[in-house]
Amino acid sequence: MKAKPYHRITSYEAEPGQVKKCVLLFSGGLDSCIMLKWIKEHYECEIVTLTVNLGQFLEDAHEAKKKALMLGASSALVADVAEEFADEYVVRCIKANGDYQGGYHLSTPLGRPLIAKVAVETALKEGADAIAHGCTGKGNDQVRIDGAIMTLAPHLKVIAPVREWSMGREEEIEYAKEHGIEINRTVDKPYSHDDNIWGITSEGAEIEDPGKVPCFEKILKVTNSPENAPNDAEIAEIEFEKGVPVALNGEKMSLYDIIACLNPVAAMHAVGVTVLIEDRIFGVKVRGVYENPAATVLIKAHKALEKLVSTRDENEFKSLIDTKWSYLCYGAKWYEPLMENLNAFIDKANEKVSGKVKVKLLKGTAGVVAVESPYSIFSEALATFNAEEEFNQNAAAPFIQLYTLSQQLAYAAKHAVMEGSDLDEKAVAN
Amino acid sequence: MKAKPYHRITSYEAEPGQVKKCVLLFSGGLDSCIMLKWIKEHYECEIVTLTVNLGQFLEDAHEAKKKALMLGASSALVADVAEEFADEYVVRCIKANGDYQGGYHLSTPLGRPLIAKVAVETALKEGADAIAHGCTGKGNDQVRIDGAIMTLAPHLKVIAPVREWSMGREEEIEYAKEHGIEINRTVDKPYSHDDNIWGITSEGAEIEDPGKVPCFEKILKVTNSPENAPNDAEIAEIEFEKGVPVALNGEKMSLYDIIACLNPVAAMHAVGVTVLIEDRIFGVKVRGVYENPAATVLIKAHKALEKLVSTRDENEFKSLIDTKWSYLCYGAKWYEPLMENLNAFIDKANEKVSGKVKVKLLKGTAGVVAVESPYSIFSEALATFNAEEEFNQNAAAPFIQLYTLSQQLAYAAKHAVMEGSDLDEKAVAN
Amino acid sequence: MKAKPYHRITSYEAEPGQVKKCVLLFSGGLDSCIMLKWIKEHYECEIVTLTVNLGQFLEDAHEAKKKALMLGASSALVADVAEEFADEYVVRCIKANGDYQGGYHLSTPLGRPLIAKVAVETALKEGADAIAHGCTGKGNDQVRIDGAIMTLAPHLKVIAPVREWSMGREEEIEYAKEHGIEINRTVDKPYSHDDNIWGITSEGAEIEDPGKVPCFEKILKVTNSPENAPNDAEIAEIEFEKGVPVALNGEKMSLYDIIACLNPVAAMHAVGVTVLIEDRIFGVKVRGVYENPAATVLIKAHKALEKLVSTRDENEFKSLIDTKWSYLCYGAKWYEPLMENLNAFIDKANEKVSGKVKVKLLKGTAGVVAVESPYSIFSEALATFNAEEEFNQNAAAPFIQLYTLSQQLAYAAKHAVMEGSDLDEKAVAN
Amino acid sequence: MKAKPYHRITSYEAEPGQVKKCVLLFSGGLDSCIMLKWIKEHYECEIVTLTVNLGQFLEDAHEAKKKALMLGASSALVADVAEEFADEYVVRCIKANGDYQGGYHLSTPLGRPLIAKVAVETALKEGADAIAHGCTGKGNDQVRIDGAIMTLAPHLKVIAPVREWSMGREEEIEYAKEHGIEINRTVDKPYSHDDNIWGITSEGAEIEDPGKVPCFEKILKVTNSPENAPNDAEIAEIEFEKGVPVALNGEKMSLYDIIACLNPVAAMHAVGVTVLIEDRIFGVKVRGVYENPAATVLIKAHKALEKLVSTRDENEFKSLIDTKWSYLCYGAKWYEPLMENLNAFIDKANEKVSGKVKVKLLKGTAGVVAVESPYSIFSEALATFNAEEEFNQNAAAPFIQLYTLSQQLAYAAKHAVMEGSDLDEKAVAN
Repeated sequence: MKAKPYHRITSYEAEPGQVKKCVLLFSGGLDSCIMLKWIKEHYECEIVTLTVNLGQFLEDAHEAKKKALMLGASSALVADVAEEFADEYVVRCIKANGDYQGGYHLSTPLGRPLIAKVAVETALKEGADAIAHGCTGKGNDQVRIDGAIMTLAPHLKVIAPVREWSMGREEEIEYAKEHGIEINRTVDKPYSHDDNIWGITSEGAEIEDPGKVPCFEKILKVTNSPENAPNDAEIAEIEFEKGVPVALNGEKMSLYDIIACLNPVAAMHAVGVTVLIEDRIFGVKVRGVYENPAATVLIKAHKALEKLVSTRDENEFKSLIDTKWSYLCYGAKWYEPLMENLNAFIDKANEKVSGKVKVKLLKGTAGVVAVESPYSIFSEALATFNAEEEFNQNAAAPFIQLYTLSQQLAYAAKHAVMEGSDLDEKAVAN
Repeated sequence: MKAKPYHRITSYEAEPGQVKKCVLLFSGGLDSCIMLKWIKEHYECEIVTLTVNLGQFLEDAHEAKKKALMLGASSALVADVAEEFADEYVVRCIKANGDYQGGYHLSTPLGRPLIAKVAVETALKEGADAIAHGCTGKGNDQVRIDGAIMTLAPHLKVIAPVREWSMGREEEIEYAKEHGIEINRTVDKPYSHDDNIWGITSEGAEIEDPGKVPCFEKILKVTNSPENAPNDAEIAEIEFEKGVPVALNGEKMSLYDIIACLNPVAAMHAVGVTVLIEDRIFGVKVRGVYENPAATVLIKAHKALEKLVSTRDENEFKSLIDTKWSYLCYGAKWYEPLMENLNAFIDKANEKVSGKVKVKLLKGTAGVVAVESPYSIFSEALATFNAEEEFNQNAAAPFIQLYTLSQQLAYAAKHAVMEGSDLDEKAVAN
Repeated sequence: MKAKPYHRITSYEAEPGQVKKCVLLFSGGLDSCIMLKWIKEHYECEIVTLTVNLGQFLEDAHEAKKKALMLGASSALVADVAEEFADEYVVRCIKANGDYQGGYHLSTPLGRPLIAKVAVETALKEGADAIAHGCTGKGNDQVRIDGAIMTLAPHLKVIAPVREWSMGREEEIEYAKEHGIEINRTVDKPYSHDDNIWGITSEGAEIEDPGKVPCFEKILKVTNSPENAPNDAEIAEIEFEKGVPVALNGEKMSLYDIIACLNPVAAMHAVGVTVLIEDRIFGVKVRGVYENPAATVLIKAHKALEKLVSTRDENEFKSLIDTKWSYLCYGAKWYEPLMENLNAFIDKANEKVSGKVKVKLLKGTAGVVAVESPYSIFSEALATFNAEEEFNQNAAAPFIQLYTLSQQLAYAAKHAVMEGSDLDEKAVAN
Repeated sequence: MKAKPYHRITSYEAEPGQVKKCVLLFSGGLDSCIMLKWIKEHYECEIVTLTVNLGQFLEDAHEAKKKALMLGASSALVADVAEEFADEYVVRCIKANGDYQGGYHLSTPLGRPLIAKVAVETALKEGADAIAHGCTGKGNDQVRIDGAIMTLAPHLKVIAPVREWSMGREEEIEYAKEHGIEINRTVDKPYSHDDNIWGITSEGAEIEDPGKVPCFEKILKVTNSPENAPNDAEIAEIEFEKGVPVALNGEKMSLYDIIACLNPVAAMHAVGVTVLIEDRIFGVKVRGVYENPAATVLIKAHKALEKLVSTRDENEFKSLIDTKWSYLCYGAKWYEPLMENLNAFIDKANEKVSGKVKVKLLKGTAGVVAVESPYSIFSEALATFNAEEEFNQNAAAPFIQLYTLSQQLAYAAKHAVMEGSDLDEKAVAN
């Protein structure tokens, strides 16, 4: 009776024989080529490949298309959703000052729900009954993608070959050779990368040992090391409307274009490299090296502007909202309704986040040096407020008396007990 | 009846005639010299000056002492509490990753409660009935000092001459000249500074206009600008025990010494300069330039180590605790009982924050590049966990199914309503 | 120089001679009659009285009008904003499950910003230059009203006679007699009350001593004591749309009418009496007795329905949002921008709070006994989910393994250190 | 290759053949009797039963022992840890005002980690290699127990027969009959119960349909319905020391005894019945009926006393800490390190929670009517504070001006933008 412990699971994972047509998320890399062959072999189904363009730095969608057809895909689709990625996903991250555990602006977790959505839409249009992806069984991305698929289209099955097969690196290469898959990249490259317009993630090799210093020269794909960056500062001016970047250095452009223009500049100045030990969804720690040049600049700028136009109460509470937003985003909860509620808060708070921010880029630093906004609470009215004739020099003492009253009372009560006396004997100030 | 609206206030502010002996917090600067004379003139009381050493970069306690006696103080005391400052105040800030609104490690707000405590102790010992300080009526420091005095010794009165007199800069200088006070500093220096071992605050001139770029060359007191910093990185290794720095580059020393050694090194590398628009307690915004070289390095290091040994749940919640701690510390609530409760949480969380952290200093950047701890959750057990033969590749799918279940249900319910169907028709994944 | 310490304050408080025409918030009670005479005497200005109807249980606006004219008001206005109060203020409280420190649904703090707004509008229309109110200098209401006036119309002055004059109860009565003010209420009534459609506040006498049991028989104005309430339960069914009550016992009506109908029923069943020791804005504690019969029923019902349609993540976070909302509302921060941001979150979260709730009223208890909603996540899909053949019985173990993984790792690491061994020797489960 | 999807899992679940000796958590109920037989049959291992006494209302440990031996257990142990349960587990819940989602004081989730701990200790002492329990695969308890076992003793295996076998109720009874297990309870009892000294949980039948009114007459095990409760109120006085109940009605006793004495009194007065729709760990909702008579009284009393001695800042923040504590406790995270950190906060906050509380019990209501404490901030010093001659009547206005300053500025800035004017034209109050 115990013999097949998980046998009766009605899993969302496809089993061979269940799938007629499958949409395979296909980057064109070695793994995705192997997957294509492997699925054909084990599931004996028709395969439509889908290459999703989120403005990657590194990959070439049309090369991928060619490979897919050559390896037996019945069709090879390319979805160019880079603008949508900026306008519907990255923008939310900017407004939320998205930052997971210190300096990671969530490029990968932001991309996954969009990739999943496009895959689902494609599957529905193509009449496919499954979606296949190359996530391993150890990481966060499977949670983000599988979770999104189950949410958006619970009838679709998922094939995750890497999670399923038991091949090590050697076996994969063997498998590739046997199945006529060209291996044109250096096989023993030590790092793995994921990237889109919002950032690049690197993992593997010494990065995985938190006690070792990562070798930036070998790891970084687009960002200069500070040592090699120019020693002359450059100022980037970003203009925001309601929390959204709308112009760079005085020129109006789309958010996608702002990011695309800002990335190489910030990267040249070595801005936006983060070495992060992070908590995965499963509770396991991993270290990654992130390059998020434009993201770093835009979020610093946004944060400074938002602070300028918000009250102290708002600024304290927003940091809590932002933290929760980032944990949910990283944590594969894009479609969790709490996310919508947080976004409603964030949109409202951003209604007044309009203005201009100057960020100084230099040798790995990005410092906000000037900010202005029509909604600024730091306005000339305050100058008047600070002038000679006004009120607060005298209002201060009564304010202080009431503002610190409860701590006075608490302190007095505690010490009265300690000394065996009554509170009234110690009393409060005056 | 309305004639004297605040007449009947039993204020904690002293009135002339009420004070026999006063402890004056005395830095030796022009303002404090004027205060000494002014209090003597208006309050006709004995004055004991108290110069509190918190490891200032800039001031000279013994010079101050000489001046005080010369200007008529009955005695001139110096309290050297720099080690206590490190061990009882700064240490709390490190454990709490103290950071107010982005890059300010709270050097001034941390110092005030200690200064107030020493002043109260001095007043009690000297039999004084009032404490005088040079805070203006616009800032935070009066709240911190007056609040602490009212809490610790409610019977003491406070004299805050700058809040009380109505002299502008010109009049002050006139007053100084008339009263034989030497004016050896350049009078038209545009910036004002406050400093201790934990950092330097600069305010005034163009710093007060958030739309203007601050002129670092003129403002910075100890920190290099990135442009002039060496282009060769330096690694600082900090060792922690239970959240407290105990060694620098392998050498055991007191926290005070670690900070004192680290400050010039980090400052040379241009590390720890922050331009911050912050919310004052009164709800008014102000911009300051902060130099906190050692503070920046130590808190980055602490944060990275703490993250390594803490769970995801801990890391998310700690950020909320830390934010509240920083708002309270800045907000003059050092003696608020909530602070004690937060500290108890923080101490417990720090019991396992032991280990070593390498921070790379270069051109204004301070990046944590390696971390190790016996309490690390990122241990070799995880390597095993990540190996071929273990479990999670297969545990993943069932986990994902349950982990995302409620968002699936919520999504299905919402769309069922939108489409007029029943939830059961849409159903959830399998 | 110290002689007039607060002399140079440009206060928002009016001084005699500054005011030509004043809008006096006027309830018709003894205090407001005395104020009318006192302001005329001391400020020698024209007075327009304004009686604001928020659906009070106890007072009579038209009686007030008559009195005001008799005592010399140049005109006596009545603003009937009870429906607006329900639709714009109370409704926000319901959606936020408004509850300050345990069982107080914020009737008074909700009313103040509306009263202030109406007073400001009246002042602008009438060309008045000041608003007068009867708040004391000890309580919260002055903060709420003065704060709102300064925010909405900073040019208006405020007259707060009770804060200004120095009359005790005896003197007030003397003053009333001298100025021909009829004293038709028992003068030695021990309690003071504030009320509107959303609840009644009682203070004074033994209520102010937290060690004494309040005498409900004398205190309660509309609510039965449980002893005298019927021993037969009654079910109230409330229907909500997007978080707003829209029907009572199957009958569609306005929110105001629902509250008006529900109040006597719930009050008869002794529901909604709270004895609360609360923290005032000034940090002082006070005890009050609150009667909020309909409020208690509606908020319990709302909370139960909201929980039914929200995920676990939403429910946990909403409680934090709601707490902050209630602290801000009580804390005179109705116009604080954070409040708008919270309301945006709350509105979004309430979009799905539609359905019906049955509340059982009996002898002081109001228990939710049944809930239904088209957005319920607790749907028949779950019944299927719980059936024999489905998946989770087997998914459970893998889920548990990953869900508790980080606590396993943390525990193992800690004990490995304690025992001087390596983490790997202890290892984690399997 | 896909054939045995979970085959390679190194699960913590035992497989037949792996277990030589097993500790079976044994209540003596039908299910536990069937488990005993079933494990013997399928795992062919020695079985030691363990009956854990947490002060259950309903069960008889010695009866259980007899049954276990009769059914073939090699030994039948009883662990009487009811006092430990009160002193180490319940006490934490009281200090944290433990309440999950509205009125559930966590009786079951509090008991599970202790039961798991005792089971692990027993297994180690007895040399067993597995622990067996009767949790289903749908609920929270398996997460709590399995998670605790994996944390405390990762080498132990778990047997969860109910999760593993596929018997429905009919088949279970059939199985019982075939194996000589006496069936002395009514088989078709509609509800299932779990209980300990801290409360009773009931589930099943109409309780599972949130749209149906639960039939209290049939469901409640110990608590009166309000209709039948006496119409005469009774006052219970509880004394606390540092947050812990130490005396009831003036008589010092252990916490266990206080609970044991208070339960029947509160239950007679119909206090502590909660109908709750709650979010399970898996994200599924379930409805339960809880009886927690003493728990309700003690936590209400604790909360009121804690509020009396804490500042406004403390009270607001504590509610957030308490909420997180309850979510973790319910969520099977007793051994999560965050729990320890929260407990450190809570212990510190409770150091001053000493004093006496009177709670009035009547017809299902439990209202705190009087509170006193030497640490009260609500002391006579405040009476003085409220007297005629003191300060705050005049301090109020300056306080209000500064306290509401940022909202004034924000409002002015926003409206200046809306009207196209400058902030300075609108300006702030005076």
